[in-house]
Amino acid sequence: MTSEQIIASLEELVAAGDTPGKVLTDPADLETYGKDWTKIHAPRPLAVVLPKTTEQVQALVRFANDHQVALVPSGGRTGLSAGAVAANGEVVVAFDNMNRIVDFNASDRTVRCQAGVITEQLQNFAEENDLYYPVDFASAGSSQLGGNLSTNAGGIKVIRYGMSRDWVAGLKVVTGKGDVLDLNKDLAKNNTGYDLRHLFIGAEGTLGFITEATMKLTRQPDDLTVLVLGLNDLTNTMDVLKAFQKKLDLTAYEFFSHQAMGHVLAHGQVQAPFDTEAPYYALLEFEAVSDQVMDDAMELFEHCMEEGWVLDGVISQSETQARNLWQLREGISESIAPRTPYKNDISVVVSRVPGFLQEIEDVVTRHYPDFEIIWFGHIGDGNLHLNILKPEAMEKEEFFGKCEQVNKWVFEIVQRYEGSVSAEHGVGMTKKPYLQYTRSEAEIAYLRGIKQVFDPNGIMNPGKLLD
Amino acid sequence: MTSEQIIASLEELVAAGDTPGKVLTDPADLETYGKDWTKIHAPRPLAVVLPKTTEQVQALVRFANDHQVALVPSGGRTGLSAGAVAANGEVVVAFDNMNRIVDFNASDRTVRCQAGVITEQLQNFAEENDLYYPVDFASAGSSQLGGNLSTNAGGIKVIRYGMSRDWVAGLKVVTGKGDVLDLNKDLAKNNTGYDLRHLFIGAEGTLGFITEATMKLTRQPDDLTVLVLGLNDLTNTMDVLKAFQKKLDLTAYEFFSHQAMGHVLAHGQVQAPFDTEAPYYALLEFEAVSDQVMDDAMELFEHCMEEGWVLDGVISQSETQARNLWQLREGISESIAPRTPYKNDISVVVSRVPGFLQEIEDVVTRHYPDFEIIWFGHIGDGNLHLNILKPEAMEKEEFFGKCEQVNKWVFEIVQRYEGSVSAEHGVGMTKKPYLQYTRSEAEIAYLRGIKQVFDPNGIMNPGKLLD
Repeated sequence: MTSEQIIASLEELVAAGDTPGKVLTDPADLETYGKDWTKIHAPRPLAVVLPKTTEQVQALVRFANDHQVALVPSGGRTGLSAGAVAANGEVVVAFDNMNRIVDFNASDRTVRCQAGVITEQLQNFAEENDLYYPVDFASAGSSQLGGNLSTNAGGIKVIRYGMSRDWVAGLKVVTGKGDVLDLNKDLAKNNTGYDLRHLFIGAEGTLGFITEATMKLTRQPDDLTVLVLGLNDLTNTMDVLKAFQKKLDLTAYEFFSHQAMGHVLAHGQVQAPFDTEAPYYALLEFEAVSDQVMDDAMELFEHCMEEGWVLDGVISQSETQARNLWQLREGISESIAPRTPYKNDISVVVSRVPGFLQEIEDVVTRHYPDFEIIWFGHIGDGNLHLNILKPEAMEKEEFFGKCEQVNKWVFEIVQRYEGSVSAEHGVGMTKKPYLQYTRSEAEIAYLRGIKQVFDPNGIMNPGKLLD
Repeated sequence: MTSEQIIASLEELVAAGDTPGKVLTDPADLETYGKDWTKIHAPRPLAVVLPKTTEQVQALVRFANDHQVALVPSGGRTGLSAGAVAANGEVVVAFDNMNRIVDFNASDRTVRCQAGVITEQLQNFAEENDLYYPVDFASAGSSQLGGNLSTNAGGIKVIRYGMSRDWVAGLKVVTGKGDVLDLNKDLAKNNTGYDLRHLFIGAEGTLGFITEATMKLTRQPDDLTVLVLGLNDLTNTMDVLKAFQKKLDLTAYEFFSHQAMGHVLAHGQVQAPFDTEAPYYALLEFEAVSDQVMDDAMELFEHCMEEGWVLDGVISQSETQARNLWQLREGISESIAPRTPYKNDISVVVSRVPGFLQEIEDVVTRHYPDFEIIWFGHIGDGNLHLNILKPEAMEKEEFFGKCEQVNKWVFEIVQRYEGSVSAEHGVGMTKKPYLQYTRSEAEIAYLRGIKQVFDPNGIMNPGKLLD
C-alpha cells in the first residue's frame, strides 16, 4: 500500500459510527504529535489518528495487522524516555479526543475514564465529588491517563498512595492482535488467573492500547502540613525517615540538595525556609488531623535536632505556607531548565540511597569537575532525579557527548546497587540500550515471549522497550 | 523412566549441596501432601519432595522438563479450589523446609522470606520488630507465603491494606522452563518493562515456583476499635459504608446474616452484641487514635440511626471487647463446619452486593426451600462467602448433587453481575469449569499463550486453572 492509500484507509476507518474520529497529516501536526519531552528524535510520522471510540481503535489495529503498519500510542507526550516518539513513518494514535469521564460510582468510589483524560481533569473531578485522586506530578496538567498507566507513573505521593498501578480497578484494552479485553471488571477481589491488567500497566503501549480505565478514588486528605528540614548529612535522610515513619503516615518525603534550592531561590518567587544553610533538605508532608499528630510531629522534630541529624527546620502554619514550601521542591525543574540539563531518573532500595548517590557524585565530579550536579527526588521511595547542568562555556554537542559517558557510569552503579535504570518514565528508546542493567537476559527473553503473544506482528510501538 | 527411577533421581537431585532436601514416599505422607482443604479428590502423588534451596527447586524443574514429570507446588494446603491437589501421580514440591526469614531491613521495612514461611510467622516477626504485616485470614496459622501469593490471598483487612499482591517488593521464582528470575529487586519504583512479579502472583503455580518473596511491612495500627451494627436491610450496608468512609479510614468492613450469628451464639463462647434483633450485621474496625476520631465515629453512628439504616449497635471499649466482637464474625466457619456446608467464594463490585446477594438467595430458596443459607464476608470489598448447610435428613450425595446445580445458578448470576467466580481462593480444579463466567474466551486464549511462554512443556501444576 502507498502512503496515500494508507491515509485514505485510516480516514475511512475512523469515519465509521456515530462519532467519527479524525486523521491529521498537516506537517505542524505531524511535528507536534511525533515527539515527547525528550525532543532528541526528529519526528516523522506518516499520519496522526484521533479516534473517538474503542471500536475505531480496534479497527485501526486490525488494519495495521493486515498491512503491517506500525502504530505509536500517544498521550500527553510528557515522557522523558522517547516512548511516544514516531520517527520512522509510523501512524500515531493520539487519545486527545477520547477524553471523557464515562461513569462515576460514589459508593464504589470509582470513576471510568477514557484514556485521553488529563491527570488534572481526573483530580478535579474527584475533588468536585468530595474525593481524591492521589497520583500527582509536575506534568499533571497535560499528561493523560493512558500514558500514566502505560508508564505506571509515580510522582510525589508514592510513599503513602503508591503508583498509578495501585489505583486501577479495571482496564479496557485493544491488544496488538486486535482483541478488545475488559480486564478485572473493576473488582476489588478477583483471583481468576493471570492478572493481565498488571501486564498492560507499564507496557508503554507495546502490547496494545489502553482505551479506558476505571480508577479508584479515596477520601480527601485533611490538613496537609509540610515540614522542611535542613540535614547535616545524606545518611540523616534515612534516620529522619525511619523516626517519622514509626509514628506518622507520611504523605510525601522528598529531598533536594543545597545547589538545587539555590536555583529555585535565584529564580525568585519563593523564600529560603530558614537562615541556617544545610547541604541537603528534606520535605515531609502529613495529615495533621489532631493536636496529637502535631504534638508527635514536633516531638519527632526535636528528637531529630537532638540527635544532630537536623540543623534547622520549619513547619507550615497555613495552606499557603505549605504551598510555598512545596515550591522549594517543585520549582527545581523549571529553575534549571534554561541550563540545558542532562536528566536521569533512577531508583534503588530506599536504604541504599545515600551510598548510591555519593558514588555517582564522586565519579562525575572526578572526571568532570566543572559539571554542576543537581540532586532532588522522591527519596521516600528511592527515586532520585539526577540533573547535570551544562557549563555555560561548553558547546551542547560536547556536553551531550560527555553525558553519554556519564550515562554508562550511572547505569553501572545502578546495576551494582541492584537499582532501576528507569524509576518512572519507562524504557522507550532512551533507556532501551541499558535495559539489561536492571533486567537479566533471561527476564528479557520472557518479555519478548509475552510481546509475541499479544503483538505477534510487531505493529505496536516498535523499537520501544524491546528490539 | 519407571517410578522407581524417578524417585531415585529426585533423591539424588535434592541431596546435592550443603543443605540436602528430602523425598517422601510413605503412603501417609502421600495422603497428607496430596490434597488441600477441598478434600474431594483422592490424593495420589508419586512422591513428595521437600527442597531446601532455590537451586534444588531449579534442578527439579529441569529434571521434570527432561522427563516430562508433572510437578505440583504445595504450601499450607489451606486452599478451597483444589489448586494444590496431586491426584494423578504427580511429584509434589512442598516448601515446609524452606521456611526461613532470610533478611530484614528496618529502614526499608522489608523482610525477605522463603516461600514456606507461615503467614503467622511473618505477622509475629513483624510485631517483634515493632512493625505490621496486615494480610490476615482464618488460616494464618498454617497457610504459607508462597501459597498466599500464588492465590493473591486477601482476607479481612483488604479494605484498608489491599491484597497480598500489594505487599510484595520482590520475588525470586523458578520458571516452568527452569530459569531463576529475581523480579523487581525489591524496588519501590521500577518502570523497566512488563512487571513479571504481578504475573506470578495469583498464577497458582502454573508458571513456575515462587521460592522467595520480599514483603513490605508497615507501622502497627493504634487502638483498633470495633463497631458492630444491626442493619435494617441489606442495602443499608452500602449507606453505612459510604457514610463512614467519608470520614474514617476503616481497617475492616465485614458483614454477616442473622442466621450466621445464630450459629456462632449456639456454639457458645461468645455473647450477642445487643438485644435488638436485625436481619444483617456489619462489623467496622478503625484506628481510634484520638478523641476526634471517636467523636466522629459516634456522630456517624447516630447519623446512621437517625436515617433508619441501623437498629442498634455497640462499640468496643477495650481490646478484649474488640476481640470478642470479632469472634462474632470469625467464629462463623467453625460453628457451621459440622453441618457439611457447601462453600462458595465470589465477588462483585461493592455497590452491587445487595442485589447480587438477593438474587442468589431467591433462586436457591425457590428451588430448595429446605436449604439453610448462611451469608458472611468482606462486604467492604465485594467478597461474599456463600455457605449452604445440608439439611440433617438429606444424604451427602443428594446434597452435593443439588449443590452442583446451585453452582450453575450462582455462576450465571456472577456472570450477569460481572463478578468473579473466585474472589480469593483461585481457580484450581474446582472453579476451572466456570472460568469463562469471569474471563472471556479471548482473555483465556491469552492466558494460554502466557502459560506457553513460561512452561512450554506443561510440567507446572497441570490441570489447574487451564486445561
